Amino acid sequence: MSSAQESVASDELSSVESCLEHIPQPQRSKVKKILYGQEFEPLALPKTAVAIATAEDFELAGYKFDVPTEQLRAPRIVRVGAVQNKIVVPTILPVEEQRNALWGRIGKIIQTAALCRVNILCLQEAWTMPFAFCTREKRPWCEFAESAENGPTTRFLQTLSKQYNMVIISPILERDNSDVIWNTAVVIDNNGKVLGKHRKNHIPRVGDFNESTYYFEGNTGHPVFETEFGRVAINICYGRHHPLNWLMFGINGAEIVFNPSATVTGLSEPLWGIEARNAAIANTYFTCAINRVGTEIFPNEFSSGDGNPAHQDFGHFYGSSYVAAPDGSRTPGLSRVRDGLLVSELDLNLCRQVKDRWGFQMTQRLDLYAASLAKVVQSDFQPQRIN
Amino acid sequence: MSSAQESVASDELSSVESCLEHIPQPQRSKVKKILYGQEFEPLALPKTAVAIATAEDFELAGYKFDVPTEQLRAPRIVRVGAVQNKIVVPTILPVEEQRNALWGRIGKIIQTAALCRVNILCLQEAWTMPFAFCTREKRPWCEFAESAENGPTTRFLQTLSKQYNMVIISPILERDNSDVIWNTAVVIDNNGKVLGKHRKNHIPRVGDFNESTYYFEGNTGHPVFETEFGRVAINICYGRHHPLNWLMFGINGAEIVFNPSATVTGLSEPLWGIEARNAAIANTYFTCAINRVGTEIFPNEFSSGDGNPAHQDFGHFYGSSYVAAPDGSRTPGLSRVRDGLLVSELDLNLCRQVKDRWGFQMTQRLDLYAASLAKVVQSDFQPQRIN
Repeated sequence: MSSAQESVASDELSSVESCLEHIPQPQRSKVKKILYGQEFEPLALPKTAVAIATAEDFELAGYKFDVPTEQLRAPRIVRVGAVQNKIVVPTILPVEEQRNALWGRIGKIIQTAALCRVNILCLQEAWTMPFAFCTREKRPWCEFAESAENGPTTRFLQTLSKQYNMVIISPILERDNSDVIWNTAVVIDNNGKVLGKHRKNHIPRVGDFNESTYYFEGNTGHPVFETEFGRVAINICYGRHHPLNWLMFGINGAEIVFNPSATVTGLSEPLWGIEARNAAIANTYFTCAINRVGTEIFPNEFSSGDGNPAHQDFGHFYGSSYVAAPDGSRTPGLSRVRDGLLVSELDLNLCRQVKDRWGFQMTQRLDLYAASLAKVVQSDFQPQRIN
Repeated sequence: MSSAQESVASDELSSVESCLEHIPQPQRSKVKKILYGQEFEPLALPKTAVAIATAEDFELAGYKFDVPTEQLRAPRIVRVGAVQNKIVVPTILPVEEQRNALWGRIGKIIQTAALCRVNILCLQEAWTMPFAFCTREKRPWCEFAESAENGPTTRFLQTLSKQYNMVIISPILERDNSDVIWNTAVVIDNNGKVLGKHRKNHIPRVGDFNESTYYFEGNTGHPVFETEFGRVAINICYGRHHPLNWLMFGINGAEIVFNPSATVTGLSEPLWGIEARNAAIANTYFTCAINRVGTEIFPNEFSSGDGNPAHQDFGHFYGSSYVAAPDGSRTPGLSRVRDGLLVSELDLNLCRQVKDRWGFQMTQRLDLYAASLAKVVQSDFQPQRIN
C-alpha cells in the first residue's frame, strides 16, 4: 500500500503557505496579514523533540499567539497539540495489527508533544482505524469499535496522559453496552481519568461519507470539559458545517473547541480554512481543526455514487491542520501530505479580551433567535417573505 | 481631501489576488483552487461598459459561476452587481452637495451595470453619506437620514430601477415618522416599486463604530424579498458576525444575501474573507459582501478610545467586495483602493443542488437547538459543564 499511497501523494501540493513565499516583500507580509491575521514567529521547540520528528519522519511545527497582558488576571498560557497522521500498515492486515501500528506511531508523537510541553492534545477523528466508511462494509471495520470508558485504546492513552501530565482527546469509534456504535471523542484528563465523552452530533450523508449507516446522531448534547488547563469541547468533523453546534459549545463556556476530522480533496478543501476559523471568530474561542492525511487503499473495490468506476481508495486526506484564535488570526497549516504535530501556545485570556473588544455576545440577541427558532420548528411555520 | 486621501491609500496593497500571480504554475492554480474554490474565467462585458469604467476611473470586473444544468428545471441565471465606492467630495461641504455628488457617481455606475445586464444590484452601507459615526457628532450627519419609502434617494433610484429593469438595494440612514433613525436597506423592485425594507439587526460597539449612539437594533425580523430575479435578503454590516442572523435569512428562503458594509483595515480585514463565505456554505445560498473603499477625512478631530492622539480619519476602508457561492467557491475581490463594480453571473439552481449534495439542512437538527436556546435564555440556565 505504501507505494500506491506515495504515487497518489506525489501530485499533491505540500501546502498553500509554502507557495506564498514566492510573493516578494513587502507584499508578502501584507498578504499574510490579510490571510492569516498575523505573521507568526515559530515557537522554539526542544532539540530532542526535533530529533524524534526527523527520525520518525513527521512534521513538527510550533507557533505562539501574541496576547496582551492584563492587570488583574495572570496569563493562562497553554500549549495545544494537534496530531494528523496516515494509517501505518495496509488495511488488509488483521484489525489488531492495524490498531497496534497506530498506537506505536501515536505513542511516539505524544512523547514528542510531551517534550514540547503540550498540555492538551487532540488526535484525529477515528484515529485507531482507517476511515473505512467509504466501503459500506461492516466487516471487519466495526471490530475497531470499543468502549469509550475502558476500551484498550482509552487504557493505552490513560497511561500516557498520566505519565506526561497531559489532557488527551481521543476520537474513536465507540461500541456501547448495547452494541450500538457511535462516533465519539473521549476526554482523558492529565491524571489519567476519563473525564467524559462526546458523541458526534451531525452525521454526513455526502459523497463516500456513508457514516449514517454505521452510527446515529449523538445524544450527549454540547458538553464542555473543565480541565486543569482550560475548558475544552469537541465538535467532531461534519459538525463544523453547523454554526449552531459551534454556538452551543460557546454558550456552555468552551475556550478551545477541537474539530477532529477526516475529509478529502475535491469535496471540502475550499471550506476547510473557512469554517473552524469562522467559528473561532463568531464564538470568541480558540478552535483547532485537525484533518487526517494520506490516501487509504481498501481491500475491496467500491463505487462512489458519482458515475465513475469502482475503486479502492477514498481520495486524498489533505491534512492542513491549524489553530484559529478568537481575534480571527490562525496559524499556518500543517502539511497536506505528511504526518504532523502542531504545537500552539495560547493565552486563554484572549477569549475575554476579544469579547470585551468586539461585543458579539452582548449584541447577539439570543432571545430573538430563541423565539424565532421556536416558531421555525412548528409544522405550521410560515417563512417571512415579502412580495 | 483628495490629496490626503491619496497619500493614505498609496501604501495600501491593491489586492491579495494580484500578489498570488507571483506563484509559478502549476502551483498557482492549485493554490487558487484551495483559496477560492475555483479559478474563475472573466465574464465578457460590453465595450461600452468598459469604456465608461475607464473614463470614470472605476474597476469593472465580471465572473461567472459554473453550475450544472438539470433535467426538470431550466437554469435561473441572474447577474448580480456589487458596488463599492469612495465618497466624492470633501465632508466639509454642505450635506446636499455631498449627497448629490454621490448620486452622480452612483448613477454612472448603475448605468454601467445596466449595460452589463445586471438584474439585482446592491450599494454599500449608508451609501449616500460619509461613514461619520466615528465622529460621535450628530450634526450635520443626522441630516443625511431620510424616509425609506419616499425620501429623495429612494425616488432617485426608483427612476433608475424602472429605466433599467433592475432590482436595486439601497442601504441608507433612515429617518422614520417619529424621527427615530435606523440603519436600513430599501429594496426597490425592477418596476420602481419599493418592495420593502430591512433594518440592521445587530449594532456594533467596537472601535470607532459608535453606531449605537445613532440608531437602535432593527425591528423588521429577517425578511426575504421575492423579486422577479430571485429571493434576496440583506444582512447589514456587523450582522455578518452573527451566524444566527445569516441562519434566519436562509430559513426564510433567501437565495442571495447581500452584506453591505463599511469596515476598515486593522479591525476586521482578516475576518472579511471568512464570514460572508462561511454564511454561504452553512446556509447554502449565495452571499455578496460589499465594503466601502477609501479614507474619509472629517472636519473636526476625534479620539478613538485607544490611547492615541485625536485625528480626523476613520482609517482605510479596504473594499475587497466579493461574491461567495453555496459550494464554498468565491470570486476574487474588487480592489482594496479603487471604486468598483463587480458583476457576477449566477445560476440560482446551485442552491438546491448543493443542498441535495451536502445535506446541511437535513442534518442540522433545528429541533435540538430550538429546545437548547429556549433554555439558554432563561435566567436560571446552567451551562453543560463536566469536571
